Amino acid sequence: MAVGTASGCPPRLAEAMRYAVFPGGHRIRPRLCLAVAAAHGGGDDRLIAAALSSIEFLHCASLVHDDMPCFDDGELRRGKPSVHVAFGESLALMTGDALIVLAFQSIAGVASSAPQRSAQLLSIVGDAVGVPHGIVAGQAWECEPAVPLKEYQRAKTGALFRAATLAGAAVAGAHDPSWGQLGDVIGSAYQIADDLMDRLGDPALIGKPVGQDDRLDRPSAVREMGVKAATELLRERIEAAVEAVPDCRGKHRLRMMIHYEASRLLNSALSAQRAA
Amino acid sequence: MAVGTASGCPPRLAEAMRYAVFPGGHRIRPRLCLAVAAAHGGGDDRLIAAALSSIEFLHCASLVHDDMPCFDDGELRRGKPSVHVAFGESLALMTGDALIVLAFQSIAGVASSAPQRSAQLLSIVGDAVGVPHGIVAGQAWECEPAVPLKEYQRAKTGALFRAATLAGAAVAGAHDPSWGQLGDVIGSAYQIADDLMDRLGDPALIGKPVGQDDRLDRPSAVREMGVKAATELLRERIEAAVEAVPDCRGKHRLRMMIHYEASRLLNSALSAQRAA
Repeated sequence: MAVGTASGCPPRLAEAMRYAVFPGGHRIRPRLCLAVAAAHGGGDDRLIAAALSSIEFLHCASLVHDDMPCFDDGELRRGKPSVHVAFGESLALMTGDALIVLAFQSIAGVASSAPQRSAQLLSIVGDAVGVPHGIVAGQAWECEPAVPLKEYQRAKTGALFRAATLAGAAVAGAHDPSWGQLGDVIGSAYQIADDLMDRLGDPALIGKPVGQDDRLDRPSAVREMGVKAATELLRERIEAAVEAVPDCRGKHRLRMMIHYEASRLLNSALSAQRAA
Repeated sequence: MAVGTASGCPPRLAEAMRYAVFPGGHRIRPRLCLAVAAAHGGGDDRLIAAALSSIEFLHCASLVHDDMPCFDDGELRRGKPSVHVAFGESLALMTGDALIVLAFQSIAGVASSAPQRSAQLLSIVGDAVGVPHGIVAGQAWECEPAVPLKEYQRAKTGALFRAATLAGAAVAGAHDPSWGQLGDVIGSAYQIADDLMDRLGDPALIGKPVGQDDRLDRPSAVREMGVKAATELLRERIEAAVEAVPDCRGKHRLRMMIHYEASRLLNSALSAQRAA
């Protein structure tokens, strides 16, 4: 189902949903999912499309709700006003809800024609966003008096990367749990890069506010160990991610892709350090 | 999956999820779903449980988000403080999200063992809550400058009743679309009863604020045609619901159940009128 184009949808909701999804960021999660599926020789196109879009819809939904005044109160996202700034809080609330549901509707759209693989996809995606270890749990850790750092970061950021690799494998018919571990390592690298950009980045370049971790007293690798050690840790995690690619037909190509994408994260962090 | 009992869940989120689900209201939607399944001779117990819980979780989620300050700002629900009053806005936001996802995780839990029927259930449930005609769309109509009354009420209230009857039939292996029409009629009766209680009810008895339709300038049968005509319309819809039960093994019993439940709605409205 295309985002908010279905006839009969409240027009402002449809507009807000499109606004939340287009233009996107780097689409790093669906691209990772696609690369893993391709490394297994691919699979049914509609099923792959459902996996990619469900993962990206859930990511966009989490950004919309995370930006709301009762959470991070972020006014800028992907270089433009956040959904609640552009459309109001109540519509932002519904936009996030509608995108969460759209993720599952996307899977529903292919479930009858590929029931077994869709069932696995549904389970992977549900776990990535729900309780106890998905994004929603990760965001909810921010409402707790004590936050277990690793669990928090694994749920808030890692879970959807884990879903991306697992889903890419599942739609291609592979079920090796080591694909989940690859997603965990990539998610952890991404989280460190994000922590670095929150300290060092230029809002005009990264399209969202910086200094949020300090302002909101959030756990972060940079706050914990400083810029230098966090950068070193990022470098280590990138190597670990490249090493963690399990055996598959397109292993070499997938390792190159992960190395390329991860180096882009590292280079952004390094050039931000030079500019700072 | 039991509500918020999984190990590793942020404890306050788990508590807020349980608070939003227990103790429940009349559980009218899952009871309707179960009655329709039973009227077809039943089906796989785990699949039926997934249908019932997914529908109730989505209903509870919609109440949590609907009560939030940016929406109805309702401070009382089921006779106790709303989730955002008891746990704060940010946790209420995540509680609603987590319950939406839990609805789909419940289906995921049975999808591998009953893939075809789960696929139908997933589709029914997704349509009931998502765009263009589900609850979220219904709530989002409240953010539009012009509200098509019938579409608004059908989406906001009717969609989950429609899902209840369709899901009850689907888990038992039946696919007659006239089950959806039965849900529509029941949903429409329920909406009128709700409008009447908003005008006439006692907050201490119904456990939520009244006068919301006037305060928030919401379309309502009572505001449109007055108490007397709305009561008459409710009576007609109840008759129509009883007549709309499609042929099935347990038709007589199901008609009796619908008549009994619907009469309870009507009696509440009538005694509220006498008390007013």
